[in-house]
Amino acid sequence: MTVVTAISQENIIVGEVANGLPLTIPVYRLKGDGTGPSVYIQANMHGAEVQGNAVIYQLLEQLKQLKLKGDITLVPYANPIGCNQKSGEFTLGRFDPITGTNWNRMYHYNSDLVTEFANTHSRFNDDALKRAFKQSLISEINNKLNGPAYLLNTGKRIALNLQKLAHQADIVLDLHTGPISSKHLYCPTFARNSAHYFNIEHVLLIPNDFDGAMDEASFCPWWHLSEKLATQGRKFDVQVEAFTVELGSQERIDLTEAKNDANSILSYLTYKAVFTDANYRPTDITRYACHLDDYLAYYAPIGGMVEYIAPLGGHIKAGEPIANILRMENYLQAQPLQTLTLDTDAIAILHFASASVNQGTELYKFFTNTFEL
Amino acid sequence: MTVVTAISQENIIVGEVANGLPLTIPVYRLKGDGTGPSVYIQANMHGAEVQGNAVIYQLLEQLKQLKLKGDITLVPYANPIGCNQKSGEFTLGRFDPITGTNWNRMYHYNSDLVTEFANTHSRFNDDALKRAFKQSLISEINNKLNGPAYLLNTGKRIALNLQKLAHQADIVLDLHTGPISSKHLYCPTFARNSAHYFNIEHVLLIPNDFDGAMDEASFCPWWHLSEKLATQGRKFDVQVEAFTVELGSQERIDLTEAKNDANSILSYLTYKAVFTDANYRPTDITRYACHLDDYLAYYAPIGGMVEYIAPLGGHIKAGEPIANILRMENYLQAQPLQTLTLDTDAIAILHFASASVNQGTELYKFFTNTFEL
Amino acid sequence: MTVVTAISQENIIVGEVANGLPLTIPVYRLKGDGTGPSVYIQANMHGAEVQGNAVIYQLLEQLKQLKLKGDITLVPYANPIGCNQKSGEFTLGRFDPITGTNWNRMYHYNSDLVTEFANTHSRFNDDALKRAFKQSLISEINNKLNGPAYLLNTGKRIALNLQKLAHQADIVLDLHTGPISSKHLYCPTFARNSAHYFNIEHVLLIPNDFDGAMDEASFCPWWHLSEKLATQGRKFDVQVEAFTVELGSQERIDLTEAKNDANSILSYLTYKAVFTDANYRPTDITRYACHLDDYLAYYAPIGGMVEYIAPLGGHIKAGEPIANILRMENYLQAQPLQTLTLDTDAIAILHFASASVNQGTELYKFFTNTFEL
Amino acid sequence: MTVVTAISQENIIVGEVANGLPLTIPVYRLKGDGTGPSVYIQANMHGAEVQGNAVIYQLLEQLKQLKLKGDITLVPYANPIGCNQKSGEFTLGRFDPITGTNWNRMYHYNSDLVTEFANTHSRFNDDALKRAFKQSLISEINNKLNGPAYLLNTGKRIALNLQKLAHQADIVLDLHTGPISSKHLYCPTFARNSAHYFNIEHVLLIPNDFDGAMDEASFCPWWHLSEKLATQGRKFDVQVEAFTVELGSQERIDLTEAKNDANSILSYLTYKAVFTDANYRPTDITRYACHLDDYLAYYAPIGGMVEYIAPLGGHIKAGEPIANILRMENYLQAQPLQTLTLDTDAIAILHFASASVNQGTELYKFFTNTFEL
Repeated sequence: MTVVTAISQENIIVGEVANGLPLTIPVYRLKGDGTGPSVYIQANMHGAEVQGNAVIYQLLEQLKQLKLKGDITLVPYANPIGCNQKSGEFTLGRFDPITGTNWNRMYHYNSDLVTEFANTHSRFNDDALKRAFKQSLISEINNKLNGPAYLLNTGKRIALNLQKLAHQADIVLDLHTGPISSKHLYCPTFARNSAHYFNIEHVLLIPNDFDGAMDEASFCPWWHLSEKLATQGRKFDVQVEAFTVELGSQERIDLTEAKNDANSILSYLTYKAVFTDANYRPTDITRYACHLDDYLAYYAPIGGMVEYIAPLGGHIKAGEPIANILRMENYLQAQPLQTLTLDTDAIAILHFASASVNQGTELYKFFTNTFEL
Repeated sequence: MTVVTAISQENIIVGEVANGLPLTIPVYRLKGDGTGPSVYIQANMHGAEVQGNAVIYQLLEQLKQLKLKGDITLVPYANPIGCNQKSGEFTLGRFDPITGTNWNRMYHYNSDLVTEFANTHSRFNDDALKRAFKQSLISEINNKLNGPAYLLNTGKRIALNLQKLAHQADIVLDLHTGPISSKHLYCPTFARNSAHYFNIEHVLLIPNDFDGAMDEASFCPWWHLSEKLATQGRKFDVQVEAFTVELGSQERIDLTEAKNDANSILSYLTYKAVFTDANYRPTDITRYACHLDDYLAYYAPIGGMVEYIAPLGGHIKAGEPIANILRMENYLQAQPLQTLTLDTDAIAILHFASASVNQGTELYKFFTNTFEL
Repeated sequence: MTVVTAISQENIIVGEVANGLPLTIPVYRLKGDGTGPSVYIQANMHGAEVQGNAVIYQLLEQLKQLKLKGDITLVPYANPIGCNQKSGEFTLGRFDPITGTNWNRMYHYNSDLVTEFANTHSRFNDDALKRAFKQSLISEINNKLNGPAYLLNTGKRIALNLQKLAHQADIVLDLHTGPISSKHLYCPTFARNSAHYFNIEHVLLIPNDFDGAMDEASFCPWWHLSEKLATQGRKFDVQVEAFTVELGSQERIDLTEAKNDANSILSYLTYKAVFTDANYRPTDITRYACHLDDYLAYYAPIGGMVEYIAPLGGHIKAGEPIANILRMENYLQAQPLQTLTLDTDAIAILHFASASVNQGTELYKFFTNTFEL
Repeated sequence: MTVVTAISQENIIVGEVANGLPLTIPVYRLKGDGTGPSVYIQANMHGAEVQGNAVIYQLLEQLKQLKLKGDITLVPYANPIGCNQKSGEFTLGRFDPITGTNWNRMYHYNSDLVTEFANTHSRFNDDALKRAFKQSLISEINNKLNGPAYLLNTGKRIALNLQKLAHQADIVLDLHTGPISSKHLYCPTFARNSAHYFNIEHVLLIPNDFDGAMDEASFCPWWHLSEKLATQGRKFDVQVEAFTVELGSQERIDLTEAKNDANSILSYLTYKAVFTDANYRPTDITRYACHLDDYLAYYAPIGGMVEYIAPLGGHIKAGEPIANILRMENYLQAQPLQTLTLDTDAIAILHFASASVNQGTELYKFFTNTFEL
């Protein structure tokens, strides 16, 4: 195999633990010729969602054989605490075990910055505006990181270090998985065309609201800037696309599937003209979309032991069984087996990872009011 | 001991667990003659914060000897899941172990309801307005509880069941503790006068923002209503006072101290004319206050083993040591003992429960810009 | 459906939790005509191993249609603490979260009792001997349960309550699962013939050593008694057969598979003449066995992210790949993908539940030196 | 301060975690002139038991000012996994979170080695015997560490790496703490004289049984060898003394107290002639002892919220209250406050760390049948 583009590695330190060991994250970089968009891809911000590391492995294996227009930065093991936090046999990595805060809700966004920037930079041309705004986003993060150490909590420090890398890119992909899940894509509505280039059947269209996640932290500032400038009568396209790519189920490494997912990403990057010559094409599949407001969380109406019936990715008709809940504490007096249904048509996207639930545990998530993209 | 006022008990079911056992909460009630404000007191929403149960015990021991003007409802063990969730030796009860959501951030508030209510009830007199608004708050909760079971998650169901009880009262006290903590009171700014009647030296003045907690869920609707009516030119006092009472440290039962805290609450209730004849008086102490914006979280600037120095309740001068952090992984090359200071005067309110911290763990919380109440 | 044999229910209390709620376990009973052996079946002693509850459901559905010679007692949800102990999304139920003690290592066995009994009852005939020994085992448990409450820890109290039921039976089945696992059977060597009647391909032959588990607690006393009497020159068959039945993977309810497993158990019980008329027959499969000493735990030789390759139940040749370990922290300098092999032929029985492991995490368990049963 | 004896540092790697980061432990060494016994001291094998690190800090501060006869090796942060394993706010470090195995029960001891050694080395003189046996113990550990990596689980690998260091010493101190605890010393009965030189009031005398702990792993081989040789008619003193030093409560760093504890250890080492000139003397206190069989675990006879009354180190008379258990779920029908007593005189040594307990949680541990040492 001929290596066409060199890969370099840097390790960044994002914290330290109680016995003084540093928390380091490897950062891999490939240089482009500067004529295409730059790309940032990270994986495993949630500890149990490991498959993204395998996708980055498969991406590196292919990227080094390609000539790039844009720089590409890849960060596996994005969260060294989440990665290594076991509780029982499983990785407890969705939230900080001390505070309960979701690791993917700690990115920074100061919307006041956008307003002020739009007011003070209206005479910049598009290119200068893009450069200046990118720089101001990065400065904001640097100020936080260089401020008093006692103002930063553990997760914020990790998030800011990653966000600093992400803000340098024009394209941001945050690789996640669901619990037990089909593949799906969180896609900002302005970028819905791009969703056609990922090999992902299910697309969740999300609005311009910041809730702390990496994808939002990457595109919301640019989207808001675009909206703000529109009120000034100026058309300025959103300059950054960012997606959360949900690769399937957590606690699973599948190298073959990782290669498929790498190809899906390479197809999207081909479309975005990141490569000089590569020509990855999307597969010919029907893509189904739903709006975030229609993404239904179905909580267990009773506690019990669950047999999941609705297949992931399956199109469910209203009234069809989606799960059985077994209740053995009262076999004689009550119906020990309760079959659950949904009162609307839906696509089952993911379900809970455990087979035993309290009343009110999130059992399934469904696309409702779906449409072909 | 003569029982003057009878206590009744009801058990409410707020959920069920995987093996079908119901999650029940005991609710104790004492009836007043209807001429005074009604009171709701709950404890132990966070699993490790058990001292409130002892305070409710001491309250019941005294309340049954008193004649009441207003009804009083007391709810120990408010969270049957948090209560019983151990992880290692300690109770893991600040957040749902499945989702990471803080149990005290799941109460409901629909601010649209206030706007609509203010618009449609402007001709009601004060008494009728209060009754109608109270009823509309309760209806809103009932609608949620009576809606499809699959829409309610575990914590929301517990919270709504408690909130339904709380909305019936004019005075709401939510008994909590910090990790290792001095006593302090979360007090809405409009009710700062009332803070003089609790035997609590440290008072945190909080604004009219809803962030999901019981105290906010209780007073925000009324405060917003008052503000809304003020814009119509009508003065309508905030009708409900609600406080989060922080009793000291978690994982501790102290029956003597619980009696002191019961007396503190009885002093406040005396002031609010809940009793016919009792005359509990506040102790003569200086009360220090700070605004929520000045409540400083101090995160560990490095990881390590912590010797906490700043005494809880202690008035710390800028530059004085607050903690030592021991780092033994590099005793020869680096300074193994780092002394931390604060660059402003402050009162130490609480500190972290463990002696070993990651970089970024919340080490201390301080009142800054304090003033005598 | 005609109910031929009535089912009765009793709830036993095996403990109470911090907020006073009792820990109850449902016990279902069907009466035989007294001419056959009595049976005790329990499930879910380990919290995440839920499938046994579904098997008990399927057993009850069929047993009530049969005429029984022996009494049958069935206990789902055997461990009300383990059942409901979540940590993150998963059930943390293999060990007491406070002490780390495996819930299935707390049963009681006093080997001195056997020696003393053999010495003092040598003149009893076989029937009387059996009755007396069974009674002495039950008395031993009752004495523990009726002794000072402060001498019993949480798990011991649960275990003794179950063991008291188990000692009344001639056949004991403890339904478990592995983490991610093929079906297998823990079978005492003296009962290897019986293993032909379960529809389970993999049989682990275990010696007469007590290590705290339910199966051992049930058969060891009888086996030791048999051995002891043999030294007196008396042949006295082991009177109690006990098996740990590993049903497959944890965190999974599959009602169809549960019916298959119920049929497997009914086949064994038919062989043991528990039914008047039923005639469940074992399936025609090859059964592979290995001795407990040859049951190989394979620990991760390095830390990393694991792709499990060896299929469960698969016959692996020495040198064939069993897993890949991905290491992305040093992609450029080291081989990022390590393929693991075994240096002996083996059958893969189970593997770890998570895809990320520390160096030294138990990765796989293998039958080695296997033979056809 | 003049440094008289140089300190050197080595970092040993005892494992690696899922993202490839190595688990390193710092090892500090001071050289003696070879005329005195060598010493091994480690701390923090259990994650929450951090005070030993502070004691090692205070030891280093003083040792570097002394001239040594024997070499001293000090190992803080002995368990890099336990150290950093949080669950909620607290450190979950008594057992491997994956398997439940107590980290201090994984040391190695092969008693067959002793028998064989005694048989084959009977003609060695005492010095040669000691050297050869020490070497054979170390070889045994090296063989394990150098054997196939897939045979070692995570905790065993950490333990063996530490044990290899410990076997090189004549004196082994393993620094631990209880949950909430008074200071106490685990002392092998053969070394009871030495207990007079520690400033520790409570001494637990333990027999020659190996249960997996570091102290036992250090002295049992030598003690058994001594016993074995005695049966050959040869008197050979036990050559290694080892103690588990319980420094007080977990989750606490107290540098002043650490200095006291360092002085206590230096007093014992003075007695053992480790120093050329230092003359640390024990404090004049009464030391109380009890045999391990009389060390009473008192389990909560009911579930509830606990007020601990018996003071740690306090001499309790039979019938005196030791704790109150509050039960608020049934305030009206049952006695809400249960006072617990003990039916024998005792010294309270430690109690549970949390204030809420299940029925059967270990509430207190007591010395009974105590005597002055």
